[in-house]
Amino acid sequence: MVLKKGDFITINFTCKVKESGEVVETTLEEVVEKEGLQSKHSDEKHEYEPLFIVVGEGWVPKGVDEALEGMEVGQEKTVEVPPDKGFGVRDPSKMKLLPLRRFSKEGITPVPGIQVEVDGKPALIRSVGAGRVQVDFNHPLSGKSLTYNLKLESLIRKSIEKVRAVIHRRIPTLNLEKTEIKVGTNEVNINIPEDSFFIEGLQLAKRNVANDIHKYLPKFKSILFIEKFMRSVSPGEVVRKKSSSPSRTESSSQPQQSDKNRS
Amino acid sequence: MVLKKGDFITINFTCKVKESGEVVETTLEEVVEKEGLQSKHSDEKHEYEPLFIVVGEGWVPKGVDEALEGMEVGQEKTVEVPPDKGFGVRDPSKMKLLPLRRFSKEGITPVPGIQVEVDGKPALIRSVGAGRVQVDFNHPLSGKSLTYNLKLESLIRKSIEKVRAVIHRRIPTLNLEKTEIKVGTNEVNINIPEDSFFIEGLQLAKRNVANDIHKYLPKFKSILFIEKFMRSVSPGEVVRKKSSSPSRTESSSQPQQSDKNRS
Repeated sequence: MVLKKGDFITINFTCKVKESGEVVETTLEEVVEKEGLQSKHSDEKHEYEPLFIVVGEGWVPKGVDEALEGMEVGQEKTVEVPPDKGFGVRDPSKMKLLPLRRFSKEGITPVPGIQVEVDGKPALIRSVGAGRVQVDFNHPLSGKSLTYNLKLESLIRKSIEKVRAVIHRRIPTLNLEKTEIKVGTNEVNINIPEDSFFIEGLQLAKRNVANDIHKYLPKFKSILFIEKFMRSVSPGEVVRKKSSSPSRTESSSQPQQSDKNRS
Repeated sequence: MVLKKGDFITINFTCKVKESGEVVETTLEEVVEKEGLQSKHSDEKHEYEPLFIVVGEGWVPKGVDEALEGMEVGQEKTVEVPPDKGFGVRDPSKMKLLPLRRFSKEGITPVPGIQVEVDGKPALIRSVGAGRVQVDFNHPLSGKSLTYNLKLESLIRKSIEKVRAVIHRRIPTLNLEKTEIKVGTNEVNINIPEDSFFIEGLQLAKRNVANDIHKYLPKFKSILFIEKFMRSVSPGEVVRKKSSSPSRTESSSQPQQSDKNRS
């Protein structure tokens, strides 16, 4: 059984710049440690795990997508990816000269080599002259040939596991073990656990999950997210009890206060 | 049938300062117009409607809660509410002298009569002296006798209507006509319409709805909020399709970009 477009898979990979051998991306903790890259994540707990992708959908550079088609589970492969199948060829028109005051008025001192954001787009400062700054909007890996060490770790076959992979992609902080997922003929029910109701950006993430399922698992017409509040003495309950105490004036749930805005 | 504690009702009311006759709060648009108060809401569309309350729960000042018990639907009443059953008696210890620099370092120029916030508490500037500011933390209506014109508009009897009232209180911007509510023996299902998934503060509002139902309608043990994403060509769909176009580098859904944070 070989891979084809639309398959749900997980891969481990390490991507290096061909010329320099510099590791620019990896899913493997051992590579990070060996290369001394771990400092990048020293401020947060980072779990290394295989990357979930849908084959042929452009979630990885084209050269990687092409290499995956035809691979078998467990197989390893080293692929050379030229710029046009990687992060693009360098586009000279994406080098711009900008007046220095654009940076100084935002309190930025441009120095060659630093990453900045201009009109919401990431850019690299190339050089700083008299009153002018040369800024490069090309992707930092554009124009570079890359070497990918790939391993196809798994092929996800069951619908419920596919849904699970999509949820993990879109809501990585959600505890999947506590998330009840039911898959019907054309409906998916996702029960968010109560301790995750306040994950930042949850509403947008739900929409992204639904969009992914609608696109890649089109047999599911409706995606239901369910949030169940149980009656129990939870921290929320304690807060609520406080707010109904006789000292009304300090409670935010007081209609006297909210109604002030009405009159 | 007369009112008792715990009843769900709606009322219209106008609250005036007894001494001056100044209207400080009303649910009635005609009063707002007559008194020339409408300018307060000129920047937003404001719907006047009867206020929903649960009798005897301190959602309105004690004097109003007491006056309500025993009233009948359709009945009108004028009640005088003394400070101790209104917004409290004035507490001299809530007048504080604060150093002027507390305000100046936050860029505030204290002027007698303006409302400020000090340590998260609303306060009124009473006077400004040499280097010192007298600040009043008493409620602006404390110490004042109030006159309430009350009308008991309706008694809410059905559980589903009670749930609806709670939802409207906690999520006033939610379109209730599009919100499907199902009430079982000990469960409430609330289907949020798709155009309301991004109401600001929705997650917190859901918790408040659940807390209110658990407190005032304790027979309902579990409150389920359901958000259903249907497969259709919605604006979200269009955005998603764009993001899978061949020009990958500008799309925020690209794993190359998100994975940068992983390596």
